[in-house]
Order: sequence, then structure tokens, then C-alpha cells
Amino acid sequence: MKRFLDLADFERDQVSALLELARRLETSPEPHALAGKILGLVFFNPSLRTLASFQAGMARLGGNSFVITPGQGTWQLETKLGALMNGAAAEHVREGIPVLASYCDVLGIRAFADGKDLASDLAETNFMAMAELVEKPLINLESAVNHPCQALADWKTMDDIGVPRQSRFVLSWAYHPKPLPMAVPNSFALIAAQMGLDLTIACPPEYDLGDEAMAEIEAAAKSSGGRVQSSRDQREACKGAWVVYAKSWGGKSFYGRAEEDIEVRQRYKHWRIDEEVMRSTDNGWFMHCLPVRRNVVVTDGVLDGPQNAAIDEAENRLYVQKAVLALTV
Amino acid sequence: MKRFLDLADFERDQVSALLELARRLETSPEPHALAGKILGLVFFNPSLRTLASFQAGMARLGGNSFVITPGQGTWQLETKLGALMNGAAAEHVREGIPVLASYCDVLGIRAFADGKDLASDLAETNFMAMAELVEKPLINLESAVNHPCQALADWKTMDDIGVPRQSRFVLSWAYHPKPLPMAVPNSFALIAAQMGLDLTIACPPEYDLGDEAMAEIEAAAKSSGGRVQSSRDQREACKGAWVVYAKSWGGKSFYGRAEEDIEVRQRYKHWRIDEEVMRSTDNGWFMHCLPVRRNVVVTDGVLDGPQNAAIDEAENRLYVQKAVLALTV
Amino acid sequence: MKRFLDLADFERDQVSALLELARRLETSPEPHALAGKILGLVFFNPSLRTLASFQAGMARLGGNSFVITPGQGTWQLETKLGALMNGAAAEHVREGIPVLASYCDVLGIRAFADGKDLASDLAETNFMAMAELVEKPLINLESAVNHPCQALADWKTMDDIGVPRQSRFVLSWAYHPKPLPMAVPNSFALIAAQMGLDLTIACPPEYDLGDEAMAEIEAAAKSSGGRVQSSRDQREACKGAWVVYAKSWGGKSFYGRAEEDIEVRQRYKHWRIDEEVMRSTDNGWFMHCLPVRRNVVVTDGVLDGPQNAAIDEAENRLYVQKAVLALTV
Repeated sequence: MKRFLDLADFERDQVSALLELARRLETSPEPHALAGKILGLVFFNPSLRTLASFQAGMARLGGNSFVITPGQGTWQLETKLGALMNGAAAEHVREGIPVLASYCDVLGIRAFADGKDLASDLAETNFMAMAELVEKPLINLESAVNHPCQALADWKTMDDIGVPRQSRFVLSWAYHPKPLPMAVPNSFALIAAQMGLDLTIACPPEYDLGDEAMAEIEAAAKSSGGRVQSSRDQREACKGAWVVYAKSWGGKSFYGRAEEDIEVRQRYKHWRIDEEVMRSTDNGWFMHCLPVRRNVVVTDGVLDGPQNAAIDEAENRLYVQKAVLALTV
Repeated sequence: MKRFLDLADFERDQVSALLELARRLETSPEPHALAGKILGLVFFNPSLRTLASFQAGMARLGGNSFVITPGQGTWQLETKLGALMNGAAAEHVREGIPVLASYCDVLGIRAFADGKDLASDLAETNFMAMAELVEKPLINLESAVNHPCQALADWKTMDDIGVPRQSRFVLSWAYHPKPLPMAVPNSFALIAAQMGLDLTIACPPEYDLGDEAMAEIEAAAKSSGGRVQSSRDQREACKGAWVVYAKSWGGKSFYGRAEEDIEVRQRYKHWRIDEEVMRSTDNGWFMHCLPVRRNVVVTDGVLDGPQNAAIDEAENRLYVQKAVLALTV
Repeated sequence: MKRFLDLADFERDQVSALLELARRLETSPEPHALAGKILGLVFFNPSLRTLASFQAGMARLGGNSFVITPGQGTWQLETKLGALMNGAAAEHVREGIPVLASYCDVLGIRAFADGKDLASDLAETNFMAMAELVEKPLINLESAVNHPCQALADWKTMDDIGVPRQSRFVLSWAYHPKPLPMAVPNSFALIAAQMGLDLTIACPPEYDLGDEAMAEIEAAAKSSGGRVQSSRDQREACKGAWVVYAKSWGGKSFYGRAEEDIEVRQRYKHWRIDEEVMRSTDNGWFMHCLPVRRNVVVTDGVLDGPQNAAIDEAENRLYVQKAVLALTV
């Protein structure tokens, strides 16, 4: 395995093998597995879990890491091809990325959606322009529409919880003051479909995931014996669910016009997970990739209560990433 | 030892054991003691010594570290309980701290006083709200009114110097353009009292440490056979001293009103340690926790002269922290 | 070898020994050579290659690093001697640097030219004021007029390429929107002279390297059997060259008056390496220390073409620095 860019690139048995290795490394540390190996981490966007857990995971396997944050202690990096570089950026990724790759054994890159051109973001233009410059093993730390490390941690979390096949599973849009990237909802809906769950995607009409993503999700559901449906009513959708996965994201039809999106989403401030919603589930779990805004996306009561699986979900990032590192380096 | 939060939590023989271990690790390195172990460091406030020495100490014991600086490469973290998070902070410490703790074997947190509500800062409300979320070993990297790593390094420095019991010891307030936290003067006055020294606290009336702190310091002095007195005259107080420990701090009566404090402190610009003060001591040492403002708190002549113990004091941070790490992890 | 501050401090056979060690460490890793050792890195200026490659190199030798970036997570550090520190800087390098040195086995410092006082920058006043505070091994990560790690990597790159003695070699000034430091052109012209090459320095009259630097370069050329000449015509100079080393730098006569320099350099926007220039060489190599501004200093066509040696040059930073670390620690 030389590239971990999109969980959809892997067959189900490959994912199972990754999760098995993650479980083994969780309980039986291998402190010399990657001795002398170097992980390079490049963050074009903020991070907490990814930043800490990749360094911790690499160190637990005996390796070491360096972190580069363009614009913070490091030059700003230009990403546009053909740019006349007379502005703020002192270096282009076409130099910066291969150079950093030459200093390590595996490179991780985080580069969120630009949020301007939907087609370009859906095609992962920005991330892939960097990926093609890297011959070393490469890990996607979250790109425009993918967050495979999160998706794998989510999968492990659901396995740990013991979510039965075909149980009811809700991915619910939630209100958030700003339009956020779609990497997590896309990745997550896809794995729920791959796992053969009975998935409901609940969101206001302006926040549909889009035909292309839905086609991919439905195909995955079909091949796994799962089911996908949509809902416009968060509260109704969550009734009887095994898992409520809350997440906010931006609307495709306002892509690149954040102000319009912000105006529209004011109507949906009630799209928030609270204790009442959780009581209506089948004693279900609350999941979220974090960071989460308390009392905006979800109430204190849910996060501080016994149905919250989000902390375990974040902890699982460490174990699945150790498996990814062990297999790619 | 699972928590190193306040030096006052430890009996004198426990402190002695820590210092003995610090001395052993200073001269006989144990490069495999913490092999495969991870230290997580969270800095809500700037750092130089703590940031560098904890990473260095962990590495010298064979372990590794990651550093999280909320708002710099990482999301801003909300600390207020019950906050409606529709502002700048994308994540709450109630998620961030337990998640980071799950990635490491020991967590260190730096969170200075808020400087708004004196009672809240004295009660360590902010730090303790985070500490209660951590089940792993925890180290206080400086909180509102405590800086136990500094206090332990100060203790070791005085042992190294060979300060005799009951020798004269002055903790002197000094002018500084801004009101600073009280963690260091509080911690330091307490250990001087615990060590049984003849402690004089010199400060203008507006900068008294306060009844509560003084009661604790006097109790410690009583039980150790030491003595505590106050002075309003820096120059008079320093005469014949073995150690002059300079430090600036904010006035309790202006708490939360920095402008008022800044106006009042203009009267005390002459509260500065210079060569004349040092000549009046019993060939005494100058101590300071650093960072220090040259020619404001203390003159170049003192810092560049033979009586300056502040660099050794800072170096001792490395050795005492190695002992703390070795015992907590 | 306790200090690696300027490549001119070393005899040619010492440089050869360093390069031989670099080659050995490139192919035969020594993962335990520096086990338990600590590298402290202090960056007063931005970095990408130096930041990543020193951490990677130290880790590949079994050691560990910490990074301090004054003003980012760390206090701002004052460098002026005798300063009355009532401004933004909370700490002076006279405390900060020896303290950091006490936490590590080897310290690296990056401190670019101040760009205000030419004589002071030429004398490395700022860097040397810090260097004299450090008793531990010390590495120059780029100072006002020196970048010895880059120079050594350049030397290795030319050895790898197999540049014959006395072949034509062009150091060419290039347009850049801002006046940049002179550390790289100085260091590089000197090693080209030390290697006995036929060096042409091409630059507009306002950007001459200056009498002092030229005298040193000419002396080195004389003793190695090399040659140095000047040119005012970039295109003419590059004809038949084995290597074209492009770099922008500031004019000495405008030192401290950036606006004037920026106005003058507008006349020289055509000083840019493009495919036509490279075609006119003797199938020559393009070299640059990076970061480089695409389509300003050099065109996409050259950087993406087969004559570009800049990525290998950057990769060589890792190998030569491992040699420097292995010899100094």
C-alpha cells in the first residue's frame, strides 16, 4: 500500500485487514516497527487530532515526524499552476512538496477545499496536483472531498460499538455559523453504505450532497446490501436510529458565495442535536468527527452524556493511523 | 505520582526524593527509561523554557512529544462551560483535552490566569476544569497561581548554591510595563517558606500578595522553622541578603483593570535591581524565573555579572522535569 | 569540529571529508549514531528546507530536535545590546540563547541580515553576538552573509553532476519583487571559486557583490587555479555555461532603503532565466537554493524541464547536514 488517499480505493477485505492491524497495534505496541523512519506532515489548514495523533502514532512505532505549516514559520506556498509569483507566496508547491518528500519516508498532506470552484474541488484538483509530485508513500490528511483517516476511524468506532448490518443510521446536517467542507459527510456516507447499513441522509434541500456523490453512495449500498434514503426532517429521521452522525457542511448551489450560504442557513438553526433527539433513538450513539461547536451543532447534554461516541471516535484516529503508517512506510 | 500540579501537594521528603532523582538524571542519563512513551504539550500561552526543556527532557529519556498551540495551526479552544459556540473558537476544551490525552502517556497544560476575575483565578477554575477531564498523568506547565516546575527548579538551584537554612532571602517585586500573573511569586514565596528561610517579601503596598497567599506562606514558614516579613523598601530589604529573587506581578486590587494597574505602577519604576543593590547583599545571588526585561526589571550589569543565577535556574528546569516525567509516566 | 558557521573556515580537504561522510550517510544510515542527543533549532526567519531537513537528519541519526520560533508560540527576543526592554520583546537573546543551548547537545540558529546597516550585517554582528553566548556545538542555519549548509549542499550537487574543474559557471542575479539577503550569492560564489571553476558573476551594476566579497572570492579562485569575471548581460554570460546558478539579492548602495531598491530593480525585470537561456548553455544545469518565484526569477519551463538541478540540490541539504551533525555533536 503506497497511497492512502481515499477509502473508496480499497476493497472491503482490505479495509478489514487495516482494521485488524489497527486493533493489534492498539493492544500490542510495536515500538521498533518504524525505527529510523520519518513522517513529513504538511498542513495547509488547521488541525488538532490529525496533528497530534500522527506524531504520536509515528513515535509509538519508533519513528519520528516533522511538521510544516505554510505561512507559519514557513514560506507561503503557491498552488496555482502557471502562476506569475510576484505576490505573497515565496515558493510553489511544485518545488516545496517534492523537496519535503525527499526528506521523509512517508508524506501526509492536508489541503481543504478551496471553496470557490465546485468542479475543481470535486475533482480534487489541488490535492492531486500535489500528489502527482510525490513518489514516496503519501497519506491524505483531509482534502477537498475526502478524509480517509476519519472514515477509517469512524468504521472502527462502529465496529467497536457493534453496529449490526442493516441497522438504522442517520447522517444529519447541522447548523453551523459558516459553510464547512464536504470531505467528512462524503467519506462518512460512503462507508455507511459500504458497511451495508440502512442510511438516512437528513438535510435541508439546499444542502443535498449532490447527484454525483449520491450515485457513488447508492452504488456502494447496492453492492453491500445496504439502503440509502433522504429526509428533510432531522427529528423524524433520528427516531429509532442506532447512530446519529451530525455534521455541518456548505451548500453546493452557493459554492464560492459564502455570504449567500450564511444567509440561507439562518433558517435552519433548529437543526441541532439535543437530548430529546437522542432519547428518540434506539438507545443510539452520537458520532461527530470533531471539532464540534457546543450548543450550536449539538447540546452540552448530549456531549456530556452516555450516548456520546465522539471521543472514542477521535481516539480511534490514533490506532487506524498507526495501521496506515505501518502498511505504507 | 500521577499529577504534578502544585508543589504544595507534596511533603518535604517527597520534594527531596524528586530533587535526588533530578540530580541522578542530570549526571546519569537513562536514555531508554521512557522509550515509546509520548508527552503531549498544550500551550495556551507563550513559552520558551517550558517548550524546549520538556521536549528535550522527554527525548533524553527515550520518549517523544507533540506540541499543540491553540489558535496557531490548531483551532482556537473555548474554555467557558455552557458556552454557545458561535464565535471564533471551533472546539471546546471538553473535547480537545480528553482527545489529546488519549494520544499520549502524560499531558502537560499551560494556561495562565485570565486576569479578569480574581476569585476564579485564585481557585484555578480554568486549569482545574481541564484537569478534571484528564485521567492520564498530568503536569501543570503554569496555571493562574502555580508554576510547580519553576518552583522545583528554584529549589534545586538554591540547593546547588547551598543556601543555608534561615539565611536572608528576598522576594522583590519589580517594575514591568504590564501587570503579569502571580503564579511565580506565589510558588516561590511558598518554597522559600517551606525551606525554612528568613523570607522578606518586598513590594509597594498596591502589590501585596494578599491575605490568603500570605496565610499559606506563613503556615509553611512556621512548620519549617522559617520566618516571613514584609518590606516597602526594595533597597533596604536586599541589604545582607543571600538571594534576591526579582519578579514583577499585577496588583490584586486592580484585577481585571490593567489600565489602572499600569497607571499606578509608573510610580515604582525605581523598583529595579541594579549593581548597587547587589553590592549591598551578603555576596548574594540574583534569581529570576525568566523571561526578564533587561534594564527594566534588572540591569545589564547584574545579569552579565558573576552573581546571576538565573541561567542555572533555567537549566535546572530540564533536570527537575526529567524527574517529574520519570515519576509520572 | 565544534562550529559550522562559514564554509570558508574549512580547508578544502576538510570539505572533502565532510562530503565523503555525507555520501556515506546517504547510502549507509547510522540510526544510532546520535541516540539520546538533542538538536535545538532557533528560527528568527522563515524556513522550509532547513526546518524539515535538520529535524529529519537528526532523527535518521537516532537523535531528536526541538524548534523555537521567537514571536510564534515563544516570546519575541530582543537582540540589541544595552536595550531598555520596555517594548514588545519580553526576553533578550543574552538569556534566551544560553538557556536553549543548555537544553541541547548542538544548537542551530537562523538570523538573516537586519538589512539596515551594511557594515553591521557584513560583520555578522547580530549572529556573532549570539554565537559568543554558546559553548555547545553551533550550526549557522543562515546568517546575514553566510549560508554554509546551502553552500555545502551546492558543492555536493556539483560533485554529483560531475562539473569539471575550469568549466564555465554563471552566478546570475535575477529580478525579484523584494531585495533579498546576500548570504547565498556570497557563499555560493566563494565555493565556485574554491572549486577552481571559471566563474562569471552576472548582475546589473547596482547589484555588484562589493569590493570586500569580491576580494575574498578572487583570492579563493587564485589559490584553486580558478577564474572570476563579471558581466552585465545575463543572456550573454550564460552562453556555453555548465551551470547557471540564479539568485536575487539586494543592492548594497540602497542598503536600508528598500523602496529605492524596489524602484531601481523594476528596470531589470528581464533578468529571468527562461528556456532560451538554458538552450544557449553547454547542455548546462539550472541551480537555485530555493525558495524560488516561478515565472519571476525563472520560468515554469526551466523548472519543469530536464536541466533543473534545484530539487536534487535541496535533497542534498539532508545528507550534508547529517554529516555536519555527526561531526559536531
